[in-house]
Amino acid sequence: MQKKSLSFPSGRTDFYFSATLAQLKTVADPRYSVIITDEHVFEAHARKLKGWKLIVLKAGEEQKVQATVDTIIQQLIELEADRKTTLVGIGGGVVTDITGYVASVYMRGIRFGFVPSSLLALVDASIGGKNGIDVGVYKNMVGVIRQPAFIMHDISLLKSLPEKEWRNGFAEIIKHACIKDAAMFRELRAQKLAHYQKKTSAIAALVQRNALLKARVVQKDETEQGDRRLLNFGHTLGHALENQYALMHGEAVAIGMAFASKMSEQLLGFRQAAQVIQTIEQYGLPVGMEFDRKHAAEILRMDKKRERSSLHYILLEKIGKGTSRSLPLEQLTQLFLEIR
Amino acid sequence: MQKKSLSFPSGRTDFYFSATLAQLKTVADPRYSVIITDEHVFEAHARKLKGWKLIVLKAGEEQKVQATVDTIIQQLIELEADRKTTLVGIGGGVVTDITGYVASVYMRGIRFGFVPSSLLALVDASIGGKNGIDVGVYKNMVGVIRQPAFIMHDISLLKSLPEKEWRNGFAEIIKHACIKDAAMFRELRAQKLAHYQKKTSAIAALVQRNALLKARVVQKDETEQGDRRLLNFGHTLGHALENQYALMHGEAVAIGMAFASKMSEQLLGFRQAAQVIQTIEQYGLPVGMEFDRKHAAEILRMDKKRERSSLHYILLEKIGKGTSRSLPLEQLTQLFLEIR
Repeated sequence: MQKKSLSFPSGRTDFYFSATLAQLKTVADPRYSVIITDEHVFEAHARKLKGWKLIVLKAGEEQKVQATVDTIIQQLIELEADRKTTLVGIGGGVVTDITGYVASVYMRGIRFGFVPSSLLALVDASIGGKNGIDVGVYKNMVGVIRQPAFIMHDISLLKSLPEKEWRNGFAEIIKHACIKDAAMFRELRAQKLAHYQKKTSAIAALVQRNALLKARVVQKDETEQGDRRLLNFGHTLGHALENQYALMHGEAVAIGMAFASKMSEQLLGFRQAAQVIQTIEQYGLPVGMEFDRKHAAEILRMDKKRERSSLHYILLEKIGKGTSRSLPLEQLTQLFLEIR
Repeated sequence: MQKKSLSFPSGRTDFYFSATLAQLKTVADPRYSVIITDEHVFEAHARKLKGWKLIVLKAGEEQKVQATVDTIIQQLIELEADRKTTLVGIGGGVVTDITGYVASVYMRGIRFGFVPSSLLALVDASIGGKNGIDVGVYKNMVGVIRQPAFIMHDISLLKSLPEKEWRNGFAEIIKHACIKDAAMFRELRAQKLAHYQKKTSAIAALVQRNALLKARVVQKDETEQGDRRLLNFGHTLGHALENQYALMHGEAVAIGMAFASKMSEQLLGFRQAAQVIQTIEQYGLPVGMEFDRKHAAEILRMDKKRERSSLHYILLEKIGKGTSRSLPLEQLTQLFLEIR
């Protein structure tokens, strides 16, 4: 187990790399902790969770809503959770988002940490302190920013991960490469998904590289006034499509990245759109779909990144260099109708 | 209008004393603001609220629940509120608590401010950044700490305040005097409620004194590790009784203060319990009631101030000097059964 502490404006997170779930009791006392997980993780790892107080949720993005928060709070009251209780979210992004949110509002905030069980949660969702829930078709409409006390990586949990969840995680890895890390982009182009699935040391190194890349962006800009906006690459159109068409998050982001690459071509003279699109496809992700373009443009009006009549859209200058541009909603609507 | 800015660890609040509601547009732009208020305030001041986007809630503590938060969020989405929107809570403690909470979680936090319309909100509820909602019989079980951007005092709003609401506010004023301000306690003993109700300059001065007293306690201890705990004087038993017996907050706190004064007599040799009790009665508030003492002791188990098997209880050493003592739950249960 290798510990690395990172400080953010709102608090410190201790990262534990190369750890195992069995070591969780060294950072959270089972007597004063409650684990929140979902039925899939619970079924796959029930034996390792013995002796912990557990709240087991149904699995799925559609659970990331206020009704689930209400249920968890009722259970915390029944378990007599108090201000000294630690909540531990073990699961994918839905579990970590909802655990962070509940811990931020229960008794005005208690300690919490994560053991991410999906690739997407390891490289993205668990990091940076954004938490929250969806409201109708609007993703993460409600939440706060508060850093977890710890994030523990047990790469062996990926063994039970379905194939589609691997692809889901690689969408965010490709995103990181596109906006910030041209060397990683070249590595991804040279490899295949199967390489990382087979070789533990390769995926462990890639996960750590991505986790630290994201954490460092957030350290400098926790409240998303500047550089953190780049992490939304592929996410604006992505979010507009995800809940509406019941896509996986990675699929939605992949389509969003392909689209934003073409927008970058048109608006900034970006020349590597074809490479981005190839790489997305190489990792088994979609690069386009038929969608109601007018309706998607309307959903943008309620995107959190909107500020009055403009919206911060993330484009690429070149691979490894993302940029945020404030675009008027009218222009965006036009681009949505034009670009194929 | 007299401006005074106070800094807290989590943010700055601009106080505007001697203001009028008509001046609200100088601190919040009507085009990009949404006012949250309740039906009583709306009926009393509808004319002054023309030209603002409004969300009008039903009145009453029973509205301070998640279902109301859900409704407000739906309306904010329909009003296309975004990250640059300001929420303004105009009302009593229920309105300010719920406005602060919604503004803290909507899109992970937007700007908000208050125009308190009740005496209790002016001297207490609007100040200090605690916000939240009740869960069943448990008061403020869910919430966060986040400071309002502004608090504007329009004392003329008190003209439409019902008599019982005046008494309600004086419970918190007496509390401040007991824990921190012996000189104010002497003033309260020398005066009557009617004096403050008649004389605008007297109530304006008393309100400002109390608002600043509370704000300064919070400045030094926003997250309630020390001195801020004193503000819970009368609130532990008070909260256990309030929702269960449908008391007004001030009534519940008054009974709690009388009880805590007797506990202080027994545990600390406090000699002025009779004076505290007299003063509470002088302002038309109750000093005792029949209640299920066993059940009240059980509710304490879920009080936010509990830490494992003990609870921080606020007692008085002398008038003007409160003190926090960690008492085992067993001892508290015993005291609850004994003290009459």
